[in-house]
Amino acid sequence: MTADRGAQHPPAAGEGRPPAGAIAVQDRYADDFAWCYGCGRHNPAGLGLKTHWDGEGTVTRFRPRPEHMAVPGYVYGGLIASLIDCHSMATASLALYHRDGHRLGDPEPVPRCVTASLQVDYLRPTPLGPELVVRGRVVELGARKAVVESELYANGVLCARGRVVAVPAPPTMTGASPGQGEG
Amino acid sequence: MTADRGAQHPPAAGEGRPPAGAIAVQDRYADDFAWCYGCGRHNPAGLGLKTHWDGEGTVTRFRPRPEHMAVPGYVYGGLIASLIDCHSMATASLALYHRDGHRLGDPEPVPRCVTASLQVDYLRPTPLGPELVVRGRVVELGARKAVVESELYANGVLCARGRVVAVPAPPTMTGASPGQGEG
Repeated sequence: MTADRGAQHPPAAGEGRPPAGAIAVQDRYADDFAWCYGCGRHNPAGLGLKTHWDGEGTVTRFRPRPEHMAVPGYVYGGLIASLIDCHSMATASLALYHRDGHRLGDPEPVPRCVTASLQVDYLRPTPLGPELVVRGRVVELGARKAVVESELYANGVLCARGRVVAVPAPPTMTGASPGQGEG
Repeated sequence: MTADRGAQHPPAAGEGRPPAGAIAVQDRYADDFAWCYGCGRHNPAGLGLKTHWDGEGTVTRFRPRPEHMAVPGYVYGGLIASLIDCHSMATASLALYHRDGHRLGDPEPVPRCVTASLQVDYLRPTPLGPELVVRGRVVELGARKAVVESELYANGVLCARGRVVAVPAPPTMTGASPGQGEG
């Protein structure tokens, strides 16, 4: 499949970037939950993903490194799965925060979700080079789980779609105690 | 969920390691298809995953690095997705090779598959520290796709299960040409 068959991202959904210094969901995870290889602010060897609320939904932007290839010219599927995973967890976590009446910037930490299941459909090759944009929305929000659907775009073209089941991380998961999920 | 509820891996399925110098599936991908971040022998910045045939099935072993955490003490879900992805692609590729009458060690390169879809169920937290073992089997092998089910173990305990749809990589995917899939 080639890009010219791609679905264009609706321009109304907030292509603009968050303002400099805007708070990311991951900035507000509690310290014990801020070590994730994908998105933990305390993990200097990780990817450093940041998920923002742009007024209409969540967005994560990331430019893969040159080594993040499947074959030359295309992004590695495992990285795409990682982007969708962390973005979807942040989206679920923010939905819980909003449900509790909070907004990013409030002093209370954002609750951390972890992944129960991850489904990624690779719709077309993702070109390696441009910044990737992931957008998500919560399609189910219950007491014990949230379901998030996320879409990954390159150059405005939809390249992959994810469906992720998130569950709140139990407090016992911190400090290397037994817990649930993989975040 | 805690490890004491874990399903033990059947000991008959070849816990032994491949002999030193044993050929991995990834050693026999064509050069153009050997750049994958997860398992490409030409990608020194990647994970260097290697998938072997152990007489009964495929096995990939990998010890995560300390930074590959979700929270301290547990493996990052995106890494688990990557392990299952590369292992399943190698398993599908080897199945095609076997179907063509080849065995690893034959001079012909192993055909490369890429990922059409990836499903991972995180059954329990995966402890960070021990070597992880991924085992896979082909549950469907057709002309245009293969379906692989893979299981990931830590300390002999089943921690995650994957179901992956693989498609043969088109020759046009090399050299940054348009292709299909994300492998």
